[in-house]
Amino acid sequence: MGSAERLSVGIIGASGYGGVQLVRLLIEHPLVEITYLGGSGSVGQTFGDLYPHLGHAVNLPIEDLEPEEIAKRAKVVFLSLPNGIAASLSPRLLAAGCKVLDLSADYRFPDLQVYEAWYKGTPRTDHEVAKTAVYGLPELYRDRIATANLVGCAGCYPTASLLALLPLLKQGLVDNSSIIIDAKSGTSGGGRQPKTNLLLAEAEGTLGAYAIANHRHTPEIEQICSDIAGQKVLVQFTPHLIPMVRGILSTVYAKMRDPGLTKDDLLTIYRSFYRTSKWVKVLPRGIYPQTKWACGTNLCYLGLEVDERTGRIIVVSAIDNLMKGQAAQALQCLNIMMGWEETTGLPQLAFYP
Amino acid sequence: MGSAERLSVGIIGASGYGGVQLVRLLIEHPLVEITYLGGSGSVGQTFGDLYPHLGHAVNLPIEDLEPEEIAKRAKVVFLSLPNGIAASLSPRLLAAGCKVLDLSADYRFPDLQVYEAWYKGTPRTDHEVAKTAVYGLPELYRDRIATANLVGCAGCYPTASLLALLPLLKQGLVDNSSIIIDAKSGTSGGGRQPKTNLLLAEAEGTLGAYAIANHRHTPEIEQICSDIAGQKVLVQFTPHLIPMVRGILSTVYAKMRDPGLTKDDLLTIYRSFYRTSKWVKVLPRGIYPQTKWACGTNLCYLGLEVDERTGRIIVVSAIDNLMKGQAAQALQCLNIMMGWEETTGLPQLAFYP
Amino acid sequence: MGSAERLSVGIIGASGYGGVQLVRLLIEHPLVEITYLGGSGSVGQTFGDLYPHLGHAVNLPIEDLEPEEIAKRAKVVFLSLPNGIAASLSPRLLAAGCKVLDLSADYRFPDLQVYEAWYKGTPRTDHEVAKTAVYGLPELYRDRIATANLVGCAGCYPTASLLALLPLLKQGLVDNSSIIIDAKSGTSGGGRQPKTNLLLAEAEGTLGAYAIANHRHTPEIEQICSDIAGQKVLVQFTPHLIPMVRGILSTVYAKMRDPGLTKDDLLTIYRSFYRTSKWVKVLPRGIYPQTKWACGTNLCYLGLEVDERTGRIIVVSAIDNLMKGQAAQALQCLNIMMGWEETTGLPQLAFYP
Amino acid sequence: MGSAERLSVGIIGASGYGGVQLVRLLIEHPLVEITYLGGSGSVGQTFGDLYPHLGHAVNLPIEDLEPEEIAKRAKVVFLSLPNGIAASLSPRLLAAGCKVLDLSADYRFPDLQVYEAWYKGTPRTDHEVAKTAVYGLPELYRDRIATANLVGCAGCYPTASLLALLPLLKQGLVDNSSIIIDAKSGTSGGGRQPKTNLLLAEAEGTLGAYAIANHRHTPEIEQICSDIAGQKVLVQFTPHLIPMVRGILSTVYAKMRDPGLTKDDLLTIYRSFYRTSKWVKVLPRGIYPQTKWACGTNLCYLGLEVDERTGRIIVVSAIDNLMKGQAAQALQCLNIMMGWEETTGLPQLAFYP
Repeated sequence: MGSAERLSVGIIGASGYGGVQLVRLLIEHPLVEITYLGGSGSVGQTFGDLYPHLGHAVNLPIEDLEPEEIAKRAKVVFLSLPNGIAASLSPRLLAAGCKVLDLSADYRFPDLQVYEAWYKGTPRTDHEVAKTAVYGLPELYRDRIATANLVGCAGCYPTASLLALLPLLKQGLVDNSSIIIDAKSGTSGGGRQPKTNLLLAEAEGTLGAYAIANHRHTPEIEQICSDIAGQKVLVQFTPHLIPMVRGILSTVYAKMRDPGLTKDDLLTIYRSFYRTSKWVKVLPRGIYPQTKWACGTNLCYLGLEVDERTGRIIVVSAIDNLMKGQAAQALQCLNIMMGWEETTGLPQLAFYP
Repeated sequence: MGSAERLSVGIIGASGYGGVQLVRLLIEHPLVEITYLGGSGSVGQTFGDLYPHLGHAVNLPIEDLEPEEIAKRAKVVFLSLPNGIAASLSPRLLAAGCKVLDLSADYRFPDLQVYEAWYKGTPRTDHEVAKTAVYGLPELYRDRIATANLVGCAGCYPTASLLALLPLLKQGLVDNSSIIIDAKSGTSGGGRQPKTNLLLAEAEGTLGAYAIANHRHTPEIEQICSDIAGQKVLVQFTPHLIPMVRGILSTVYAKMRDPGLTKDDLLTIYRSFYRTSKWVKVLPRGIYPQTKWACGTNLCYLGLEVDERTGRIIVVSAIDNLMKGQAAQALQCLNIMMGWEETTGLPQLAFYP
Repeated sequence: MGSAERLSVGIIGASGYGGVQLVRLLIEHPLVEITYLGGSGSVGQTFGDLYPHLGHAVNLPIEDLEPEEIAKRAKVVFLSLPNGIAASLSPRLLAAGCKVLDLSADYRFPDLQVYEAWYKGTPRTDHEVAKTAVYGLPELYRDRIATANLVGCAGCYPTASLLALLPLLKQGLVDNSSIIIDAKSGTSGGGRQPKTNLLLAEAEGTLGAYAIANHRHTPEIEQICSDIAGQKVLVQFTPHLIPMVRGILSTVYAKMRDPGLTKDDLLTIYRSFYRTSKWVKVLPRGIYPQTKWACGTNLCYLGLEVDERTGRIIVVSAIDNLMKGQAAQALQCLNIMMGWEETTGLPQLAFYP
Repeated sequence: MGSAERLSVGIIGASGYGGVQLVRLLIEHPLVEITYLGGSGSVGQTFGDLYPHLGHAVNLPIEDLEPEEIAKRAKVVFLSLPNGIAASLSPRLLAAGCKVLDLSADYRFPDLQVYEAWYKGTPRTDHEVAKTAVYGLPELYRDRIATANLVGCAGCYPTASLLALLPLLKQGLVDNSSIIIDAKSGTSGGGRQPKTNLLLAEAEGTLGAYAIANHRHTPEIEQICSDIAGQKVLVQFTPHLIPMVRGILSTVYAKMRDPGLTKDDLLTIYRSFYRTSKWVKVLPRGIYPQTKWACGTNLCYLGLEVDERTGRIIVVSAIDNLMKGQAAQALQCLNIMMGWEETTGLPQLAFYP
């Protein structure tokens, strides 16, 4: 296929970790072509100045154009920006005819009151646009994504947590008030901003919990859980910072409604639920996932356990926080929006070790 | 104090991680003297052959003597051996007049049926001796340890988990059927045996759960919880392997009985409970511990949180798995057994970073 | 292309790190098909038993067939085995009509006396076969590889070191007696065998040199340097173990013959030397490579410096030890042997971070 | 000893990594008492606000007093500040009667022209004071330190490199124009400032050289080498960043003058040179140091090798960059200045692993 026939895509926020993943994935995607790289702090530099190892493959400058100008260059725009900025760019991009995939939290909540309650800042004025956004978790909302012009891509922790929880909620297998999500993330989730607590000298060789009982991914998880369960669901969500670069592991606990449920029942239910989802791999009985198995891929691995002594189900999910938890999942959404095969251009096999 | 007046101590199993911690701590302890280093695989070598960096400070050979011979050299013997071996050595050491501190699981269960159910292997024949053993968690059983001749030192995960749970159980603050312990450990907990899954190439840059619903520290935790609560308590215990050398973090969840309990109430209760325990530090409101804060010390840091939305208490505890979780706690027990100040010879300040 | 038209390839030694890289790369290579996985210790298991995360993509059993049987299944065989074993398998595979790519040291030395002097063990009896082997460093011996039936793939340290040195030696720019190679490798270079010194608990957070003045990659490097320089060259080679999984950095020092040589001269010479080598990237002035830039790819990055004060050239090279240093380079050789484009099926862009 | 009799010491720059080491060491030192903690950015906070895990042991506020006020509180002041600041504080502290130990580069050069050439910035006006400064490497300048009022403590790389080189230079064993120092450091050497390249996500799992041929520790090393050798010595110094928190390894290469020198000769020479230096440990033949062996201590381990093939000596030295390379060495200097035993209050045994 000649480049003239490829879909033109732009990235705003190309300098961060989400951006560099997107650039890498889009370069290797057979049906798209990068036509715009946007950034504010790094305007005037080339992408190779920011990431010398990729300079041989992409030589675009970082620009800072108005949305309407960007729309002349790109039919699809990925936004990989701090929370709050997409809300001002997206309406203009959409009006100019672009499809928009936003990697921030701005379009994950149809009810912007929830957003404003958890994400303090400037009040939102784009309620009409926000209502048109589809939550970018393809395993759940594949059909809606297919026809969307604006996708609010799922957060990293929510992706890992929801893929572990969805079959339980859908089938009504657990006491919905008993859900505890103990999540662990590599430090790249904190972004490429220099922060003292994310220095190697601080974060290596140690482990801690943070934002206990008030992390902003909590309402995002609850909103989708409630949608699936058909009732208001609250979850206990605790994130931890792990001394590694990439990866999220979510260990999910819930009380079974039917104490007679067996491991094999559970395996059957999960395999059935994810039968058409090529990116979710339900592991065999007794095998629990390592985050490294998913690193560099768009995969989510799930390990299942039933504890007969305590009457609980434990599900462990592993993803790469920057791939299935961010950039690769956004590209999976694009594949769906364009009617392409959902696996096009996305890595399926992790390097190991 | 001249070395003639120091307490003579021996270590059986000096070559492993527990052993090398003990050697280091005992060298720096002002009231003891190491007079015997035992091992089987490394007999004929000196300690400096095994650990060249300590060769300048300790030049004892590794020997493999009968317990009765050891007893002629050492008044106190630490056993740092795989599970199942202490059961055959301890009765003979005790009979020969030694005090024994066992770092394995052999003497943690007064009811050996529980031991035999979880630790498969040779049936135990030392029931009488086992009944005399005291569980080596000084913050709970200080008085009994003071008069014991045989201490079954607490496991690493149980130490971190119990110190987080004890005030809740003692005060009856939580629904005892709701306790979930999500624990995370550095890989040194797996010992110095070469195992493929503990290679740096395998374990670095990744994270996984293991032994879900059937880890052998579960009954150890439950036994003590039940003792304190005055009723049978089951806990959900899930260990994870973290890509770091040392440290355990336990994140403990439980449902509050009284939804009106506040964070300040909780802080007050914990500070009161640990008022006389110099090795437990309850952190100020809003501060959660890092495992690195405890590394190299005998300290346990506790961070407390109340989630009003969900009605749960979350307690996070951090220890060094090889110190408070193993060797240093054994030495703390020895200090108590000998009537010495509980902090004698034990490190109190972690290097940082 | 249908699988009937793909080249059938086998791997003997599929369970180690070299093997698992090969499996991953060959699965994604558009022109080959894996038809045999061999191993001794893991016969009876499937590949998915060894590497559960790849079970969804490859479901072949591990077998242990005679070379003649393997040759019925595979036109090309990769050997990823401990040193000394390929020497007995290769003659039989070649006789049965296979092309062989050996990742061990067995066929890196046309003069087997050098091999026997540095690799103690069983004397070699395959001198005739060894003479037909080509050294598998494509940037240097592309033409010979194209017509070879037996390739002795270059070692990891030699690949990184030689790519840094070749232009200097070819152009006679340095005093050949002044070459010092200070090399640093991640621990995956030690293989998937459980060894105490490669445990995470031992190897994390630390750094050391090993095999100073007697590492077995020394004669391999010297042999090729001597070939290029047209005179006997001795090098000082010191390997170090770095607390990371993958990657080799070689820092190479040599005394300039012409003190007037400038950085720009050097850049010009290197770029010219590697003009047709798509896998070698000479970095711009003042940029030095990170090993992470190469991880997961077949790339070698080179950074150059001239120190006018001391009259030395310093060249820093970075590769992924398991890719350009092992499996991917073997596949690069296969591409050349088959007359395919040298980049076919090989990753070119590292994930970052 | 009552605290009234202890030596009062202050630290300016207590919030960084040098400062926190000093605080920890001084708390545990039996003969001193911390009476002042200075900082600019963190005035108004307590030390426990900065380092919660040490809050239980030190509760001093961070202040920002004039030097004359500090001198009323402290007889000795440690300066742990960015380069260039000590030059303005030290003259006033000295004039007010304090002894000063500076951990920056400001007082390492008696010839301030060298300083100004390598450390660009404000020109220095304290030439008279600088001339009175003694270079704080006790193994070399013990006698001068004993009578100094101002010590310019040796840098981290220079300490590791010089301790490896000194016996060679003193005995004239090597060609002084052949010295190459390939040094490797953990990332804590970069300080506690948030810098993108020192983020865990950037610096973990990778390795690179930096400041090739122009690192500012080069003239510091050369100055001392020249002093010992009695002639101008230039060295090739290349630093590398290693994915670990602490530790420096220096691999030093030099051409032997006498090719008949044996390993045993070398061991004898080094042991003799360091006979009275309790903090330097020359390892047995064939043993090379790990940085972890030194971590948390004031020790320097040296491993020696002679390569008969190439006629070179290779010396490997390992230190903790924040201890022997910074804070602990400063305290070693203080011990000497006060006439105390050189080992007082300094850790001698590394925790392992």
